[in-house]
Amino acid sequence: MNDNIHPVDLEKAYRLLNHGPTVLVSARHGEEQDVMAAAWACALDFSPPRLSVVLDKSTRTRALIERAGTFVIQVPTAAQVQLTYEVGNRSLADDPNKLAQCGVSLLAFEGHDQPFVEGCCAWLACEVIPEPHIQHTYDLFIAQVTGAWADRRVFENGHWKFEDADPQLRSIHYVAGGQFYGIGASLVARHTPKG
Amino acid sequence: MNDNIHPVDLEKAYRLLNHGPTVLVSARHGEEQDVMAAAWACALDFSPPRLSVVLDKSTRTRALIERAGTFVIQVPTAAQVQLTYEVGNRSLADDPNKLAQCGVSLLAFEGHDQPFVEGCCAWLACEVIPEPHIQHTYDLFIAQVTGAWADRRVFENGHWKFEDADPQLRSIHYVAGGQFYGIGASLVARHTPKG
Repeated sequence: MNDNIHPVDLEKAYRLLNHGPTVLVSARHGEEQDVMAAAWACALDFSPPRLSVVLDKSTRTRALIERAGTFVIQVPTAAQVQLTYEVGNRSLADDPNKLAQCGVSLLAFEGHDQPFVEGCCAWLACEVIPEPHIQHTYDLFIAQVTGAWADRRVFENGHWKFEDADPQLRSIHYVAGGQFYGIGASLVARHTPKG
Repeated sequence: MNDNIHPVDLEKAYRLLNHGPTVLVSARHGEEQDVMAAAWACALDFSPPRLSVVLDKSTRTRALIERAGTFVIQVPTAAQVQLTYEVGNRSLADDPNKLAQCGVSLLAFEGHDQPFVEGCCAWLACEVIPEPHIQHTYDLFIAQVTGAWADRRVFENGHWKFEDADPQLRSIHYVAGGQFYGIGASLVARHTPKG
C-alpha cells in the first residue's frame, strides 16, 4: 500500500468532501463488487460524521449497497479522470470484467471489509442509515462515516494542500460530457470580528 | 442589471452545481431577508430539477425559508471570497445591518419575489419540497428548481467556460478556517465505447 495513506480524524472527515469533488462509490456483497462515479455526494454533518449520496436505481453499485449496508466514498485525482469517466459509463451488468477494463485496482484497509480504490487521494468508509422514503423517492442515501483516510501528499493535519503537491493529485469536479475541472488556486479570506 | 445574466434551461440547471461549488443561500419573508454561505448543497435530480441543501437550525436564513417556502441558491465567485466568508460568519440576529456590512447587494429577477445576490455567476430559484422528517433529523432540505440564470462570461450553452474567463469569475470551494479553492483547469476524458 502507498505509504502516504494515513487515517483522518473522524471529526475532520467532512473536509474531504467539503470542496465538492466528484467521487467514486464502491461496494461489495458476497463475491460481487462494483465501482461507480458520483458527482452528487455531499457532507451532511460534522459529528457524528455523515454524508449523503444520490445513487440511481439502475446502478449495480446501489444494489450491492442495499444488500451490504456499507460502501466507500473516495476522492479520485486528476490522474484518474479517464478511470472516473469509464466507471461512470460502463455497467457491471453488461461487462463482468468492468473493473479491470476501467483500470481499477482495489486496496484493503484493516478492519473494513470493503473495496477501496487505489490511487485516490481520500477514502471514507460508510454505513447506510436506513431512510426508505428518501431512498425510494429521491434515490438519496444517508450514511455514517466509520473510517477516513487520505494521502498525506495532499491532505495533512486536517487540511488539503493541493497547492503544494503534484497537480496530478488534485481532486476533480465533473460537469458533463466527459469534462471535469481540477481544483485550482488557494484563496483565503481575512478573519474579521463577528458583527 | 449585468447584461451578461441570461436564463439557463431548467434541464441544464444541475450543471450549475455539479462541480461542487460553495453557494450562498438567500431568502426573504415579509420585510426580512438574509443570506448565508453553504458548502453542503448538491444537485439531486435532472428532471424535475431538484437540489438538496443542509441548513443549520441556528441560522436566520433557515427560519425565513421555513416561512417563505422559497429560497435562492447562488454561486459566488473568487471576487466574492470575503463576502462569502462574512455572510457565513455574521448573524442577522446579532447585526440587523449584516447584509450591508458584508457588502451584499441584491438583484430582482422578474417573476421571482426572492433576494438574488449581485455579482454571483449563477442563480437557482428554489421551492421547498416539504420533507419534515429529514428537515428535522438531518437539517436537510429538498427543493425544486423553478428558475435558473448564469453569467454568460463563464456559463453558456449549458457549459461552464471558466478557462476562457477572468479568474475572478471562478467558482469557489470552501475547506475550513476561511480557506477556499478556486476551480481550476479543464480536464477532458476520451470518449470510449460502452463495455
